[in-house]
Amino acid sequence: MEHLLYWVGLAAVAVNALTGVLDAGRKNMDLVGVVMVGSATALGGGTVRDLLLDRQVFWISDQTYLVAALATTLLVFFLVRGLRLPPRLFLVPDAVGLALFTIVGTQVALEWEAPWLAASLLGVITGVVGGVLRDVLCNDVPLVFVRGELYASAAWAGALTLIGLQALDVTPVVAAWSGMVVVLVLRFLAMAFRITLPTYTERK
Amino acid sequence: MEHLLYWVGLAAVAVNALTGVLDAGRKNMDLVGVVMVGSATALGGGTVRDLLLDRQVFWISDQTYLVAALATTLLVFFLVRGLRLPPRLFLVPDAVGLALFTIVGTQVALEWEAPWLAASLLGVITGVVGGVLRDVLCNDVPLVFVRGELYASAAWAGALTLIGLQALDVTPVVAAWSGMVVVLVLRFLAMAFRITLPTYTERK
Amino acid sequence: MEHLLYWVGLAAVAVNALTGVLDAGRKNMDLVGVVMVGSATALGGGTVRDLLLDRQVFWISDQTYLVAALATTLLVFFLVRGLRLPPRLFLVPDAVGLALFTIVGTQVALEWEAPWLAASLLGVITGVVGGVLRDVLCNDVPLVFVRGELYASAAWAGALTLIGLQALDVTPVVAAWSGMVVVLVLRFLAMAFRITLPTYTERK
Repeated sequence: MEHLLYWVGLAAVAVNALTGVLDAGRKNMDLVGVVMVGSATALGGGTVRDLLLDRQVFWISDQTYLVAALATTLLVFFLVRGLRLPPRLFLVPDAVGLALFTIVGTQVALEWEAPWLAASLLGVITGVVGGVLRDVLCNDVPLVFVRGELYASAAWAGALTLIGLQALDVTPVVAAWSGMVVVLVLRFLAMAFRITLPTYTERK
Repeated sequence: MEHLLYWVGLAAVAVNALTGVLDAGRKNMDLVGVVMVGSATALGGGTVRDLLLDRQVFWISDQTYLVAALATTLLVFFLVRGLRLPPRLFLVPDAVGLALFTIVGTQVALEWEAPWLAASLLGVITGVVGGVLRDVLCNDVPLVFVRGELYASAAWAGALTLIGLQALDVTPVVAAWSGMVVVLVLRFLAMAFRITLPTYTERK
Repeated sequence: MEHLLYWVGLAAVAVNALTGVLDAGRKNMDLVGVVMVGSATALGGGTVRDLLLDRQVFWISDQTYLVAALATTLLVFFLVRGLRLPPRLFLVPDAVGLALFTIVGTQVALEWEAPWLAASLLGVITGVVGGVLRDVLCNDVPLVFVRGELYASAAWAGALTLIGLQALDVTPVVAAWSGMVVVLVLRFLAMAFRITLPTYTERK
């Protein structure tokens, strides 16, 4: 499980760095701007989780994550710049990053003995904060606040799936993969069919 | 005193969640948006205080606060949505939340052995951060920056009242209530009579 | 070295408070707004560094920094208000604050046993966060994101200079001054000659 978490964490960092670069690139930022947005997207969620759990920040205790974020950022910058990519393309890695980070974040919070409800929210925070930072730094409305599409709620459902399955004695690895699948399926369904939640003023 | 602090803290969480929901509702957010804004308003100030004090975050060490924030948020959401409330109404719970959080925050910082000036500022931070997060997430100008009305300064006066009275050997409970009254009275006077502070370019 | 760091830290706090007041003043904020922006600019970078390093926040463990920030803020407020200063004037103290904070931040991170790459980024964070907070609170585009001028990259070069010279066994005091000079020279050259980095869409 430790092993799986480590690689899923690295993959999440790389995927989120990729979305950061694609977004920063659309805004014509320079190299340092792109590196900053890519790193903040890749490392922001886990950093906030570690601060809230009073745990050593993961990219300071293991510099590999930092190197992964910087390397992905630079690689994508030099490979992709100049290309015109369809803007909706980056919604796919964004959903993958959301799923990976939510599950890693929930699992780390549980191991750090956070109570289950707090752990599920820490998972959601790990999943969404990187993207929120990216969107704020690039001056977009954060995807998590775009009305009418499941985003944080998809992450929350995945985190609760992981916690529920573990409470039912499913093996941790199966529970983790199931949680990720739940996030991804809900997020893709939401984008495909524009699934919405009730809004405040609906009842007229 | 511990006992008083605990209940005042829970009341502050509920009152701040209420203001978050009212504000998010005005912006037609959906259920998840409302829950996120309500929770951030309710838990943001204390979270920042605990991070600065290197103390375990209060809603992770005691999940009751988290349940109180979520329950208030959902209750207000389903009770109030569809109603048209006068927009200035929410200034009253906002002032109450400011007073409660400022006093709890100052008291916790003192118990955590912060020096007095730092403790008074940590009280102000606990009081105002929740509302700032709410206003930023709802895309309003934060109330604390609205020119011409005491807000952070009312909180600071209350925090200094608490610290001063305790230094004069007044019992902690009396000092706490006095501090809360000072914040509320100053804030309501400021709103009623538009009391202002000197501005930078006044001297012409 | 400890001694040097302490005074450089106090100087950085005062200089950054000054830039905060000048900027807040341009926006006609009132006294409390100016105090808040000045303090956030002065203390923000070091606070984020200490949170990331899981170190006690410097202005809570030693209240001197807090007093320096407040005293500078109030002094500048009452001395300068009403004067019309040329807007580009504040770029000079801003560059000095960037240099001082970057070097102090890097040095503290190294002493706290952060690995070198993480330490250099913690130095950059210490250097730029105060100014970003100032610009966000004053509703400007953060200087660090203004395209076409070295800013974070100047800080990073200075941090890497400090780390590289120490690895080459140069005495810490000489390494620290050299790092500061590198930041200042790069920043002033960048402002004078509008030195730019490659941007994402350059390759047409």
